[in-house]
Amino acid sequence: MKVLLIYDITEDKLRNKTANMCKDYGLIRVQYSAFFGEISRNLHGELTRRLKFLLKDSERSSVLIFPLSQDSLENVIKIDFNYSEDTYVNEV
Amino acid sequence: MKVLLIYDITEDKLRNKTANMCKDYGLIRVQYSAFFGEISRNLHGELTRRLKFLLKDSERSSVLIFPLSQDSLENVIKIDFNYSEDTYVNEV
Repeated sequence: MKVLLIYDITEDKLRNKTANMCKDYGLIRVQYSAFFGEISRNLHGELTRRLKFLLKDSERSSVLIFPLSQDSLENVIKIDFNYSEDTYVNEV
Repeated sequence: MKVLLIYDITEDKLRNKTANMCKDYGLIRVQYSAFFGEISRNLHGELTRRLKFLLKDSERSSVLIFPLSQDSLENVIKIDFNYSEDTYVNEV
């Protein structure tokens, strides 16, 4: 299944760990706090559980994981000025 | 149509204007840089055009607008710790 995962996490350390976890599961960063990619149902469940555990002691955090249909993907609007993937390679 | 709009915008002024524009079109903030809501196809087109114009001189900016299916909405995973809507009412 294709998913978009977005997060808003207060603590830098937890935000970094969340970003790294998304990469570990093969998701690709599309914005600073947004990852996209294909993931199996099992790994989707596993990632969800691990994020819940990781963030349970967070001061303030939100993660939203949207499954995306093929129709949705074919109709995404992308407005992009001087914004490329390597823009945030170093910003975790 | 239901949409999720996420953005990553360098300039504070443009980011504020983008957030206000999303509110003007009736979208609801679900995370600091993410808005969700119902919007007609016409207004979706209008909002897209206005954001392209607003951000055209931006140093670095990205806006992604995902149409969301009912199935997607029914299967959103929400991981939330101490995170409520009024969390960011004042942070534009």
